Amino acid sequence: MSNPKFHPLDALNGVDISSASALVKQRYGSVPLRFKDAEVVEPPKAELIPFLEAERKGLDGSALPAAPPRIISLTFHPQDTKVFAEAIVNVDSKEILSIKQLGDIQGPIDMDEYKDVEMACLKHPTVLAEVEKMKLPTGTKIICEPWIYGTDDANEKRRLVQCYMYVATSDHPESNFYSLPCTFAPVFDLQSLECVRIDHLPTGKDHSTQEVQPWKAVEPVEYAEDLIKEPIRSDLKPLIVTQPKGASFTVEGERIKWQKWDFRLSYNWREGPVLNNILYDNRSTFHRISLSEMTVPYADPRAPYHRKQAFDLGDFGIGLTANELTLGCDCLGHIKYLDAFRVNAHGEPVKMQNVMCIHEQDAGIGWKHTNHRNGIATVVRNRQLVIQTICTLANYEYIVAYIFDQAGSIHMELRATGILSTTPIVPGLDNPWSTTVAPGVAAPYHQHIFCLRIDPAIDGRQNTVVYEDSLPMPVDDMNPYKVGYMTKQTRISHSQGFSDSLESGRVVKIENPNIRNTISMHPVSYKLHAHRSQMLLMHPDSINTQRAGFATKPFWVTKFSEGELYAAGRWTNQSHASTGVDEWVKRNDSTENEDIVLWHTFGLTHNPRPEDFPVMPAEIITVSLKPSSFFNLNPANDVARSSQQQNKSVLHEDRSVIVVNGNGRANAECCS
Amino acid sequence: MSNPKFHPLDALNGVDISSASALVKQRYGSVPLRFKDAEVVEPPKAELIPFLEAERKGLDGSALPAAPPRIISLTFHPQDTKVFAEAIVNVDSKEILSIKQLGDIQGPIDMDEYKDVEMACLKHPTVLAEVEKMKLPTGTKIICEPWIYGTDDANEKRRLVQCYMYVATSDHPESNFYSLPCTFAPVFDLQSLECVRIDHLPTGKDHSTQEVQPWKAVEPVEYAEDLIKEPIRSDLKPLIVTQPKGASFTVEGERIKWQKWDFRLSYNWREGPVLNNILYDNRSTFHRISLSEMTVPYADPRAPYHRKQAFDLGDFGIGLTANELTLGCDCLGHIKYLDAFRVNAHGEPVKMQNVMCIHEQDAGIGWKHTNHRNGIATVVRNRQLVIQTICTLANYEYIVAYIFDQAGSIHMELRATGILSTTPIVPGLDNPWSTTVAPGVAAPYHQHIFCLRIDPAIDGRQNTVVYEDSLPMPVDDMNPYKVGYMTKQTRISHSQGFSDSLESGRVVKIENPNIRNTISMHPVSYKLHAHRSQMLLMHPDSINTQRAGFATKPFWVTKFSEGELYAAGRWTNQSHASTGVDEWVKRNDSTENEDIVLWHTFGLTHNPRPEDFPVMPAEIITVSLKPSSFFNLNPANDVARSSQQQNKSVLHEDRSVIVVNGNGRANAECCS
Repeated sequence: MSNPKFHPLDALNGVDISSASALVKQRYGSVPLRFKDAEVVEPPKAELIPFLEAERKGLDGSALPAAPPRIISLTFHPQDTKVFAEAIVNVDSKEILSIKQLGDIQGPIDMDEYKDVEMACLKHPTVLAEVEKMKLPTGTKIICEPWIYGTDDANEKRRLVQCYMYVATSDHPESNFYSLPCTFAPVFDLQSLECVRIDHLPTGKDHSTQEVQPWKAVEPVEYAEDLIKEPIRSDLKPLIVTQPKGASFTVEGERIKWQKWDFRLSYNWREGPVLNNILYDNRSTFHRISLSEMTVPYADPRAPYHRKQAFDLGDFGIGLTANELTLGCDCLGHIKYLDAFRVNAHGEPVKMQNVMCIHEQDAGIGWKHTNHRNGIATVVRNRQLVIQTICTLANYEYIVAYIFDQAGSIHMELRATGILSTTPIVPGLDNPWSTTVAPGVAAPYHQHIFCLRIDPAIDGRQNTVVYEDSLPMPVDDMNPYKVGYMTKQTRISHSQGFSDSLESGRVVKIENPNIRNTISMHPVSYKLHAHRSQMLLMHPDSINTQRAGFATKPFWVTKFSEGELYAAGRWTNQSHASTGVDEWVKRNDSTENEDIVLWHTFGLTHNPRPEDFPVMPAEIITVSLKPSSFFNLNPANDVARSSQQQNKSVLHEDRSVIVVNGNGRANAECCS
Repeated sequence: MSNPKFHPLDALNGVDISSASALVKQRYGSVPLRFKDAEVVEPPKAELIPFLEAERKGLDGSALPAAPPRIISLTFHPQDTKVFAEAIVNVDSKEILSIKQLGDIQGPIDMDEYKDVEMACLKHPTVLAEVEKMKLPTGTKIICEPWIYGTDDANEKRRLVQCYMYVATSDHPESNFYSLPCTFAPVFDLQSLECVRIDHLPTGKDHSTQEVQPWKAVEPVEYAEDLIKEPIRSDLKPLIVTQPKGASFTVEGERIKWQKWDFRLSYNWREGPVLNNILYDNRSTFHRISLSEMTVPYADPRAPYHRKQAFDLGDFGIGLTANELTLGCDCLGHIKYLDAFRVNAHGEPVKMQNVMCIHEQDAGIGWKHTNHRNGIATVVRNRQLVIQTICTLANYEYIVAYIFDQAGSIHMELRATGILSTTPIVPGLDNPWSTTVAPGVAAPYHQHIFCLRIDPAIDGRQNTVVYEDSLPMPVDDMNPYKVGYMTKQTRISHSQGFSDSLESGRVVKIENPNIRNTISMHPVSYKLHAHRSQMLLMHPDSINTQRAGFATKPFWVTKFSEGELYAAGRWTNQSHASTGVDEWVKRNDSTENEDIVLWHTFGLTHNPRPEDFPVMPAEIITVSLKPSSFFNLNPANDVARSSQQQNKSVLHEDRSVIVVNGNGRANAECCS
């Protein structure tokens, strides 16, 4: 049974937003406020852990320690000021704990200002004057895509966006305007909605730009079913997943139980889904797992493109941009959808429908062994539980899935899909930092660099990160045949970032040094199956690297500190430098047998293919956390065996059997 | 329509075996022959390609050039001799083309000798004398597991196996004797079936061994449903894949067609499934793809373990050890099974039932884009075609799957499962090259190093391998903001092996330099999504490395040469040195715009976990071949959109909706 009151880890809800904003509005009296983001301030671990541990011990209701108070953070601008402030509100006691001005930082883009500037840009005389020059045929229209400004000037104090402009050749709701980029890009002030300047985009091989020219009509490359030229394939037969007895998971409030797993699923505007207090068979494994940041820098060295570096979590938010998922489109089988809430500019709650889904999938064979002496086999399938959110960041989609399996592993799967960010190029030309994906359309090289935040609780909160290298043994009396190899463990005793090593097959583990596995005699641990990737390619002195220190090393270990949730720091929009993990490690905290956090940076260097356009086939990255001496044997040893009685597979019969049997000429065999 | 006669690429069949062995027996008259392996000798490309190209152009029946003759290779021993010979037979013209003695090499283990030596060992007085010393309780029995001998002596001319011995505590057909290893290991001569010697196994931390001691009863760790202690999980509900209109693929003889793919699926005792003449939309992509070799060296530096280095393809064969797949256990949905044939010791064909299966699977979202302005989304699912074979190599299983998708990619997925190779260890002790997985049972560290052979035909047979590094641009006038990066292509102009580079995000491509993509203006190509792995850990001077040169570099390029199919050479059993790809590259052939072969070496450094015992959860490796400028746009742009009408998903409803909506206290919301 879940706590009848809110659980301390429950996601932000409508009541939180209304009560908190009411108190802040009251405080400001007649001054109208413009709200930006609302989030739950998670209780300090000192209060939270005793509560969670009591729950884990099975205590309930009155036997539980008092739940920590529910604290909400609201960020806002008093109207017509440049002041950006944060209120911390206790919505249980209905009191404002603090209001502080956040000073010289820019908060993330929010939905309302995004729409406002889009409108302002499309109406602005300076912009319309440029559009005039394109002499567009009737029926075409102009699309404005506001893009995070990034930054290249430490003295820039305005709140800016760069508007990339495109041509849509029809009113079709899915017309692919990204295949018709314009050559000018207005810069707007998000607060005054003034047009700061018009940037002209280089369209050749160098930095040179030119005035807007009359538009030469080209065919857009479409993806909408009723716009594409190719006929839709007609020879794919339906594949349906049926679960006649329903799903195997249960959802009580935000507490999910499935196959010995028991965890809380929270959600916020920034990280989207957050996994909390993850128990397996009532043993704690991880305290909190979330995607903490992603940066997407572009390789085009020319202005204004050098500023194209989105921090898709800090600047926009995966939670805020999540798709409303649709039954039967985004998953198969029995699907549970979950909603979430955001605050709007007026401080009102807005429900975001179906931003997460939960379902099961069959992932092939989980384990199998056949006794070759008698041919008798045991097969167990690999059933998985999937928590999925899909977010749209302007042109691009990310599918974020947390996957649990029956062998004690947790996987984070990222699928990158959607439409490439495109730039105009003189037809027939190409340049060395992009791929031409359509006539007059270049798709610049770029990187997607993610950081997964792992707050472990391997049988308790005192853990140590160790990396293990597999190395040849020295050639000596112990190793006379020169075949031996061993592992070398390196403990991360103090907060730091460290490198991967392909040569030594480096594996990163999170151990509890206080508890040993009774079989292997090794400390109980989970190992990280990292995604080995190229790190940030920009020069160390570039503003892009300065802002994204986390993207320079694949692994970071910090001592847990309240509020340190985001790899590049809390405020990334127009940031000049990182205030994140690369800074925190400098404290040189002790991280051995402590409450620690492991940060894993990984990504894609994405040099586009024409095959990635108009919409790219999903590129899949998986990072896994697998038990290593956490259990005494295969945790899936007790999973029901795979059987035709349950699976009801169907034999596909045809003539080929004859030929494949090698008796193609012996029709007699036909019916054998 | 497939050729009514055998197709030149058809797998070995019963008729081939009977006709070929009859001719060879006839030649030897009264001398009885002991047959080992039979295989089809693929026609030389000079004869094959014109035939395949004519087929591709749609010619048929009489319009086709004459099919090359069907040539069969039979290896055999004239009884009671050490002679090992190969006959090459034309089964169309019924003539023996050649018989040659193969000299000082050992052929692979075959099914019959494997069983013979197992029996001989269990009956042998010397072995029984050792078993005596164990003073086993009644009801227990001894299991003999013959293991490939490897080699450490260039002068060893005998055909040897090492028999590892285990205790089974019951007659149960799935009793896990691997968890009860004995401390002695007889060595047998496979031809004379003599016991050459008894090796005693080190059970401590050093090389020392001791006489066989009375057995101390320990509990085996079981995996059989009716032997395990844990109750089987009862809370997993069925998940059924239904395909009401059947499967989307067609099988004509050995020609498979699915979603614009058209290829031939062959099979042999060694490589198992082989993909031939792979066309997409009637454009050629790859001539032949197969797993060419795998070596599994162990890290334990002590005799006799230093010889534990299986070449699972060359020493045994994936095709020969393939499981008979069972409907509803190994896959879901509509499944097509294929059989194959092997030769037995008497030269007779033996049918191997259901050694391959073909089915479709849903692999989640293929691509998606949502227009954030109106929320309208297009989702396409990722349907795949899977060709699967599962082989059991004594204790261990490999699941080999070739997967085709709708976006022009081919994936090879390997799942490593089954039971660890175990060794005895004094309870309470451990050593630095193994993990204790049960009381008295050590699982030594080892590597699984695979080599995928890719014979490309990217729009023709003249191809070039290029590797592409992503590198920062120099900081100069072109790159004033220091953010630019570009790619650097390196052409492999001559046969060689080369390294991976994590730092430069190296990508290996196979290009056709003679044909350019009209959009990107790049040569048409496929890129290899390699599995970045640690290479062979054994010392370069060790016999293990000498035998497995292919395992020292992740990439090799050779000029195509008839018969060069196996990365470690044709004969691996007790080999002293490689005769494979590392030797062939020394020819320094020109490989630019030539008929070339790309070899990809990858693997797992497997330092076992207790969680890998008794049967390990499948460890999955995927290597992909993806089009890169081969198509002008996303090849899956024309796949039917995902819709509830087809997918028939079901909404999972429960109380939680209330709480998750953040209105846990407002029951009114319950029915909204």
